Amino acid sequence: MKVYLGTVSGNSYKLRILLSLLKAPHEVVIIDMKNKQHKSAGFLKINPRGEVPALEDGGKVIWDSAACLVYVARKYGGEQWLPTDAAGLAEVTQWLVLAATEIQCGLQYARRGVVQGRWTLGTLEEGQAFGRIALNIAEQRLKNHDWLALDRPTIAEPACFPYIETAPEGKVALEPYPAIIKWMERCKKLPGWVGR
Amino acid sequence: MKVYLGTVSGNSYKLRILLSLLKAPHEVVIIDMKNKQHKSAGFLKINPRGEVPALEDGGKVIWDSAACLVYVARKYGGEQWLPTDAAGLAEVTQWLVLAATEIQCGLQYARRGVVQGRWTLGTLEEGQAFGRIALNIAEQRLKNHDWLALDRPTIAEPACFPYIETAPEGKVALEPYPAIIKWMERCKKLPGWVGR
Repeated sequence: MKVYLGTVSGNSYKLRILLSLLKAPHEVVIIDMKNKQHKSAGFLKINPRGEVPALEDGGKVIWDSAACLVYVARKYGGEQWLPTDAAGLAEVTQWLVLAATEIQCGLQYARRGVVQGRWTLGTLEEGQAFGRIALNIAEQRLKNHDWLALDRPTIAEPACFPYIETAPEGKVALEPYPAIIKWMERCKKLPGWVGR
Repeated sequence: MKVYLGTVSGNSYKLRILLSLLKAPHEVVIIDMKNKQHKSAGFLKINPRGEVPALEDGGKVIWDSAACLVYVARKYGGEQWLPTDAAGLAEVTQWLVLAATEIQCGLQYARRGVVQGRWTLGTLEEGQAFGRIALNIAEQRLKNHDWLALDRPTIAEPACFPYIETAPEGKVALEPYPAIIKWMERCKKLPGWVGR
């Protein structure tokens, strides 16, 4: 299994966390994002979306970060990190989608604008407002539960963690969300969890 | 199984298509979106995101449209509409995410702005550009394949169809994407496929 990662990509960090949690054997290919290698003709043949991470295994290419988590969890994690019963799979999926919509298109795009000056979808205020929808949903869930989707950690954790952790760089303070702060501490204590 | 739907919601349409394809028994509750019932305190208790569709079954609530598709497919569709092997599940998942990101936050938000005058994330041009990423990926895939994720229809079809079909209302013409136009025709011929 070959994984294409960027060194400063939060979406790549999601996959790095899971690969480490599951001790999944893999080969890393670093994509030079500063020199826009992820938008090069060569890489677009691997990933038509022009993003990292991507994953290649047995001739198959997976080009979305949540889908990469799904692939690794199903191949190396049994039912633990991504169950296949209707309710379990649906509950994990809704957090995977939240990570890609309100969390990425909201919190992360606001942060990317502030940090990199790159605004591709929405203003700072729009991104912050969109992102806070996710924070409110997560806070409500985590007030009474240790983990996002189920009663144990799943791939919802690595999917949602990276761009929640960096929300303050997009001027969204996390202090109003104490249950999220405690959840982040629990995540970091999971055996095999890695830092950025 | 109780499903909460809005009459003009494209995300609700995704779920209506799948329920019909699978002949899944269900009870419909219509949410009055014109009078903002989806943002009411009562409905926010069911769906903290304040959106339709949502699904309630055996005490569980699923509040994201892609996750609703996953739930119904796993409960009523066996492996046909959502396989559980690593590659199959990952390939379907990447289209579910694309439907929620580039397709919804791009094509649909552009269209919603044009049609309803409501701009919550990005300008017309930003939404169109974001949405065209998805159209290019789908066109590339459908040039050589009949269906988005696998060699048969899966829940990727109802997930992606509604807001691709309405892209022209957001001033994104579909003529440059002939393979997508043919795919839409194939979708409409699937036994049980329903119109809006």
